[in-house]
Amino acid sequence: MKLPVSTEWVLHCATTLAQLEPGATASATRLAEYYDIPAPSLTKQLQALVRAGVLDATTGPRGGFRLARPTGDITLLQIVEAVDGPSSPYVCREIRQQGRGALPPEDCQDTCVLARRMEEAHQAWRDSLAGVSLADVLDSLPPTAHERTRARLTVRR
Amino acid sequence: MKLPVSTEWVLHCATTLAQLEPGATASATRLAEYYDIPAPSLTKQLQALVRAGVLDATTGPRGGFRLARPTGDITLLQIVEAVDGPSSPYVCREIRQQGRGALPPEDCQDTCVLARRMEEAHQAWRDSLAGVSLADVLDSLPPTAHERTRARLTVRR
Repeated sequence: MKLPVSTEWVLHCATTLAQLEPGATASATRLAEYYDIPAPSLTKQLQALVRAGVLDATTGPRGGFRLARPTGDITLLQIVEAVDGPSSPYVCREIRQQGRGALPPEDCQDTCVLARRMEEAHQAWRDSLAGVSLADVLDSLPPTAHERTRARLTVRR
Repeated sequence: MKLPVSTEWVLHCATTLAQLEPGATASATRLAEYYDIPAPSLTKQLQALVRAGVLDATTGPRGGFRLARPTGDITLLQIVEAVDGPSSPYVCREIRQQGRGALPPEDCQDTCVLARRMEEAHQAWRDSLAGVSLADVLDSLPPTAHERTRARLTVRR
């Protein structure tokens, strides 16, 4: 199982936006240059973060993206699921109900024990990511990171 | 992120083999009929379980697959990773070191905090599945399951 390549992009872009002055924005083009990633693809992913309520998009000459909520209210889970969705990597196709060993429907009203255990593991993964906010991530950056990020993101060629 | 379709197959086949008499085997053909899944594909997956030490393969007229270890010593994690590998779904491509914002190599000797948090979540998923053995799965089946499984798996057309 693999998360999309864009997962790394959006985690880093959200962390970068979290270091701007309150209310400041950055365009998709600027963020794409900052990380040397393709702007059209990044734009789509940033729009997914807007739909998920993680980012706000503003228009106009100084328009761009910024966090929609305080850093303590945005979790890594929200960012990851904005681009990959919330569904479990394990899909139960109910093979217990097919073939020579098929169980009758009345024995399959409860979720299969294997699907339950796989779902519990997915929930453990979700709980782990839901327990880390962007504020936690910022806390672990060196003290000079914010200033450096702002300078490099806004520098003009 | 999605696990392969065969994940459901191998979890169910291992659970089925765990219900046989000690030492009894079942062929890939028989297991494929039991769940109505394609035998050639299933054979490859069962061989992956053999390589992972979960199953033994025996040859000869009564040859087939059986558990390589007691049910208490086989975890769902071992079964899932036998077919999907142990790697994390999140791949860090070090975009922090590229583009206009590129950090110098000396600032990147530690793993990126985002990659660390993603790895912790993967470890939580692994720990959850490592905590469930085939014996645990069998404990949650109805008391008539073993007899039914053995009868249906060995019935001749």
